[in-house]
Amino acid sequence: MANITKKVSWSSRTDESGAAGEDTPLLNGSEPPRRSRQDSLRARPKEIPHNEKLLSLKYESLDYDNIENQLFLEEERRMGHMNFRCLEISRWVICGLIGFFTGLVACCIDIVVEILAGYKYKEVKENIEKFTEAGGLSISLLLWAVLNSAFVMVGSIIVAFFEPVAAGSGIPQIKCYLNGIKIPRVVRLKTLLVKVFGVICSVAGGLAVGKEGPMIHSGAVIAAGVSQGRSTSLKRDFKIFEYFRRDTEKRDFVSAGAAAGVSAAFGAPVGGVLFSLEEGASFWNQMLTWRIFFASMISTFTLNFFLSVHHNTPGELSSPGLINFGRFDSETMTYNLYEVPLFIAMGAIGGLLGALFNFLNYWLTIFRIRYVHRPCLQVMEAMLVAAVTAMVSFTMMYFSNDCQPLDSNSSEDYPLQLFCADGEYNSMATVFFNTPEKSVRSLFHNQPGTSSPLTLGLFTLTYFFLACWTYGLAVSAGVFIPSLLIGAAWGRLCGILLASITHSSDSMWADPGKYALIGAAAQLGGIVRMTISLTVIMMEATGNVTYGFPIMLVLITAKIVGDYFVEGLYDIHIKLQSVPFLHWEAPATSHWLTAREVMSSPVTCLNRIEKVGTIVDILSNTSTCHNGFPVVVQVANSDEPAKLCGLILRSQLIVLLKHKVFVELARSRLTMRKLQLKDFRDAYPRFPPIQSIHVSQDERECMMDLTEFMNPTPYTVPEETSLPRVFKLFRALGLRHLVVVNDENKVIGLVTRKDLARYHMGKHGLEELQLAQT
Amino acid sequence: MANITKKVSWSSRTDESGAAGEDTPLLNGSEPPRRSRQDSLRARPKEIPHNEKLLSLKYESLDYDNIENQLFLEEERRMGHMNFRCLEISRWVICGLIGFFTGLVACCIDIVVEILAGYKYKEVKENIEKFTEAGGLSISLLLWAVLNSAFVMVGSIIVAFFEPVAAGSGIPQIKCYLNGIKIPRVVRLKTLLVKVFGVICSVAGGLAVGKEGPMIHSGAVIAAGVSQGRSTSLKRDFKIFEYFRRDTEKRDFVSAGAAAGVSAAFGAPVGGVLFSLEEGASFWNQMLTWRIFFASMISTFTLNFFLSVHHNTPGELSSPGLINFGRFDSETMTYNLYEVPLFIAMGAIGGLLGALFNFLNYWLTIFRIRYVHRPCLQVMEAMLVAAVTAMVSFTMMYFSNDCQPLDSNSSEDYPLQLFCADGEYNSMATVFFNTPEKSVRSLFHNQPGTSSPLTLGLFTLTYFFLACWTYGLAVSAGVFIPSLLIGAAWGRLCGILLASITHSSDSMWADPGKYALIGAAAQLGGIVRMTISLTVIMMEATGNVTYGFPIMLVLITAKIVGDYFVEGLYDIHIKLQSVPFLHWEAPATSHWLTAREVMSSPVTCLNRIEKVGTIVDILSNTSTCHNGFPVVVQVANSDEPAKLCGLILRSQLIVLLKHKVFVELARSRLTMRKLQLKDFRDAYPRFPPIQSIHVSQDERECMMDLTEFMNPTPYTVPEETSLPRVFKLFRALGLRHLVVVNDENKVIGLVTRKDLARYHMGKHGLEELQLAQT
Repeated sequence: MANITKKVSWSSRTDESGAAGEDTPLLNGSEPPRRSRQDSLRARPKEIPHNEKLLSLKYESLDYDNIENQLFLEEERRMGHMNFRCLEISRWVICGLIGFFTGLVACCIDIVVEILAGYKYKEVKENIEKFTEAGGLSISLLLWAVLNSAFVMVGSIIVAFFEPVAAGSGIPQIKCYLNGIKIPRVVRLKTLLVKVFGVICSVAGGLAVGKEGPMIHSGAVIAAGVSQGRSTSLKRDFKIFEYFRRDTEKRDFVSAGAAAGVSAAFGAPVGGVLFSLEEGASFWNQMLTWRIFFASMISTFTLNFFLSVHHNTPGELSSPGLINFGRFDSETMTYNLYEVPLFIAMGAIGGLLGALFNFLNYWLTIFRIRYVHRPCLQVMEAMLVAAVTAMVSFTMMYFSNDCQPLDSNSSEDYPLQLFCADGEYNSMATVFFNTPEKSVRSLFHNQPGTSSPLTLGLFTLTYFFLACWTYGLAVSAGVFIPSLLIGAAWGRLCGILLASITHSSDSMWADPGKYALIGAAAQLGGIVRMTISLTVIMMEATGNVTYGFPIMLVLITAKIVGDYFVEGLYDIHIKLQSVPFLHWEAPATSHWLTAREVMSSPVTCLNRIEKVGTIVDILSNTSTCHNGFPVVVQVANSDEPAKLCGLILRSQLIVLLKHKVFVELARSRLTMRKLQLKDFRDAYPRFPPIQSIHVSQDERECMMDLTEFMNPTPYTVPEETSLPRVFKLFRALGLRHLVVVNDENKVIGLVTRKDLARYHMGKHGLEELQLAQT
Repeated sequence: MANITKKVSWSSRTDESGAAGEDTPLLNGSEPPRRSRQDSLRARPKEIPHNEKLLSLKYESLDYDNIENQLFLEEERRMGHMNFRCLEISRWVICGLIGFFTGLVACCIDIVVEILAGYKYKEVKENIEKFTEAGGLSISLLLWAVLNSAFVMVGSIIVAFFEPVAAGSGIPQIKCYLNGIKIPRVVRLKTLLVKVFGVICSVAGGLAVGKEGPMIHSGAVIAAGVSQGRSTSLKRDFKIFEYFRRDTEKRDFVSAGAAAGVSAAFGAPVGGVLFSLEEGASFWNQMLTWRIFFASMISTFTLNFFLSVHHNTPGELSSPGLINFGRFDSETMTYNLYEVPLFIAMGAIGGLLGALFNFLNYWLTIFRIRYVHRPCLQVMEAMLVAAVTAMVSFTMMYFSNDCQPLDSNSSEDYPLQLFCADGEYNSMATVFFNTPEKSVRSLFHNQPGTSSPLTLGLFTLTYFFLACWTYGLAVSAGVFIPSLLIGAAWGRLCGILLASITHSSDSMWADPGKYALIGAAAQLGGIVRMTISLTVIMMEATGNVTYGFPIMLVLITAKIVGDYFVEGLYDIHIKLQSVPFLHWEAPATSHWLTAREVMSSPVTCLNRIEKVGTIVDILSNTSTCHNGFPVVVQVANSDEPAKLCGLILRSQLIVLLKHKVFVELARSRLTMRKLQLKDFRDAYPRFPPIQSIHVSQDERECMMDLTEFMNPTPYTVPEETSLPRVFKLFRALGLRHLVVVNDENKVIGLVTRKDLARYHMGKHGLEELQLAQT
């Protein structure tokens, strides 16, 4: 959509593989990418050119495939039945802890936001009331805007300056992580802290955001932390759960954490499990699913329990999630067959509006990548948005003359009288002068007639643009609640219009809450396009399965309509980050491609017993930066392929070099300590760079025996294998490197994630993305 | 648990592989299995010995792996973007049809059962009322027993004599199918017809059975039929959907069918999707999940619509499934934190009772396999059970003096007065003199006090044994409803006891319906042990997510407790059938086994250009009956392994032989028609046996070129690969044959499903099952 780029040749270099290409991939067809990166380090240019038809080389893959080397197999074979049972119990304990801490974090966020927002709205309300009569409401507006901006400034500063990866909802990042991509710093403790404080600030700052999306990210970070039994940031190692210090196990726990996050956010444990499976799992393992389910359950339960204590009703398990849609009573709110076409139509509207939202946000994000990339600019933009939000809300309330009688059992927390008569309140304030969660609930449950069509229409319009502007700011915040709010507003509007068209105030048409729910589902579906998990989340959040069927219909329609125009919001942001994301299947028309054409070659191979100097040189070669090296029997001639006998990773070689596991040819150093799996686990996941390891000239002459450490049975494919077949193997097993061999088992290439992610279906058939060091 | 058997040597022969072993696996360590099979064909012995530590060789695998041979690739490469889009649309259309027909079948079953059962109960009720005063109730009993037996006789005869695979709920068979095992005749039209009529007869016959399980099987058969666009039984080919005539596509549709079945049975579309994924998918594909979801939706919608028409309330979508738990109102039925331990305790009881049920049924099934294997015996047993059920029910009602006042808005369809005063009815008759679905609903929703503890206790006891005796009869019937009914009865009993202990008739303890629901979940979980799908099914059937959390807790507890004693009911029956079922993961302690030890060898290989006579001889060898043959470059010496270049299946060779795709060495027959994919698709899935193909002596001398037809890129593993690694590859990709090669890419063995299914965790660590021709 943006720039048009030239295709790079097949053998472009990747940082995953040991394949060395001759040609350098070009950024925008003109400038070598490495120079541009160095430039950007020296002095940030005013405009950063961006091209979404690129795949970034800076993202590495997770290894979902176990490295079954001799050390690993020996350990596994030593372990008895009881050991495995203990491990299984530890897994359950960890999942329980993940759920507990996720619930706790959600609870903290909820309570702190409640207190802060309560303080803010109270102050502003008093101020407004003071100045309504006297005139001079501009002072109230100023107070409100300043309070908002102050909160948002704090939230934005910590995100922009300390941990930019904590920006946004975190769902795209977690999607990528579960897809098998290592996003730097995404599951660190610091990210969690910034995320939690950031989301509190942005919600309290009155932005058009929700605190639900960030919960998913928070859950994932908690999972990554708890499951490793240590914190690298805090330099504490509890010496527990050491068995789980590898990507395979960690990723399983992160799935559980993400599910626990969804569960805490929406009170939807089943929805959480489905979310994790939908986003993460190319596999489905029953025990894993159980554990994810367990974590989700504990999470919602913990949140529920602590919130009930906070609300002085301990033991009353009525608030399972951060957002609570309130009770939809199945008696009063039924639907009928002839309403089904209406629901479908609303789904289509949701799809259209969602596509518009995504499209606007796409351009905005492109603009931000180009021009708003300095932290101070980002903070200023966030503050501006906060001030504008306050200003727009205030203006809307000021000019609205939709007054409603103040009911004693109304759900209004901060009813604003403004220019209404005594005993009445401003209806526009219901939706603007409130936290978004409460506004959603009012739209679902307020009695018919509590807001005029004009109020709802104006609200939809302004909030749509505010939410669109807000998503992508350097603050930690989610898009679920704003989407629901927009949808609920126009859904309620539809309901009111329908009732007025049919002139039947007592029929079922008259209940605008039902249409608000359907509208909310349609809008959310149109923006994020999640599927079956979203249905279940909505179903669980309403606490009523009666609406399961219409919600499904609406979501499917919204997805079909929306997909026709533009992708889902998360997918757009993933694409803009040039992440090598692997979809479910290879493009349909890619059967004409074979492994031979897809793979990177020639490959940098290592011998089974290799000179230390050679290894150091290969690892130090910054122009290739390979991560996996096939081990071959003997490289006789560098042009001729040699027989494959294993695969070794950069991280393993680094550990070997660090521990100086060398074999001196002259006198064999028998005192050498035997390396154990523990050494690899201790170094995981932050392996030192090769530059930090000193290898003397003497040592360079030593040899290293890789036999014990390499994976002796890497997965291989013959060179004639079609791309869909390669893709299927790669995706189903979560591989990082797939060796391509000829019919004599000799290495001729290596397929990595980027080689596969390059191909995607464009408007005009199969397209190929460029690889670049962005 | 039964006989103890000797282990067979590693190289035992399998019917899947091209591997030829020298030794014959022994049945019970004494008798060659093939002779015993021939014996059984000649004259059925009085007692059939059974040993569950066997894996039967009669089950073949489905090929979930596409055969990407030249023909296939050429076709795929010819197809443009639009063709793939059309295919995708066809898939959606098929899923819609599957859902529609499944809903229709469910609707038919429901209506016919309602009519028949209504007729029966009316007759018997009139008869009882006539004789209650006059004395001579034994005539009523006789009438009831004869009516029941008559219905059951019809149902049992069609099952036992025409289609034994239609017996039972069909869920174990569908589990196996989705696991990748070809159960003979399981998805045929005849099976569907027998299933549908059978279930109508057995439910109308008053057996302790449900009609929900069979719906899952019915959905699967419908899916298999619709997706192929033809019926082999009816000899009609509609010439549509020809692309889908292979195992990969068919299995996907069968998943959708099973989900549609669950959806129609319980009104649980999400639960249906989860069921299919839990049982079937070793993969998770988003588009597939969507389609499954769509089929489920259409299915429940169709059922709902037609039932609403039948009930003269068209358009009122209130009965989404065959079983309807009725409305659980969230206002009156809440639960509190201190009830959670109670729920867990009830889960444990459910687990214990479920284990007892399964254990009794296990011994009964062993007994049946040994002694009740003749169809006429089976019919007689079924009739006996029907008569006994009537007799027991009658006795219970006769001796019960639990009379309840007859309420005008009571849900009783056939209130029996018996010896109660006028205006009262017999409470025992509520549960016995009714279809099981309605009894479940009464137990959930009747007012507190409608049945005495004694009634409930006696009912639980008798129904438990009746249901246990019934499951496994040669009738088509499910175990869901009886389980729910038993659980609801003792759950309600628990509720009543709790209320009487706490002496608080007005507190929430007093609502026995809540405990009935929890008890039903616990009992069902204890018997079938399904997990997350069952939670969602229960949640959707109650139409209320408030109970989601307690139901989860109960199901988890029931599963943990039950698994401690004995497996789930379906797993027991799968095991008793000696099916080579692959679980989620390889046994934990199997890392010491490698592909070399697991594989079958030596392997019967074919040359790329092979003599027709050789092929015919290999295929005709009934003692091996191999299904897949590695194609090698040249077998120089049969002892030395040759280089792998492809894999070909028996079914493909049969088609090639049938179409005489020979190359005559002397004069090249250029007029030969080029074989197309269509020829293979037309022959699918009932490939003729080799005996039916006549090959003349001349033709035997011809050669056959396999290059175009073999899969040139079969998946391979090196011989040192550990069993878990082999297992993971095999399971994740749904393979049928996995070639084991040495480091020169030469074939040294073949791993098939049975080689992997042989290893399982027993009480004393890893155990190995025997292979036999049972």
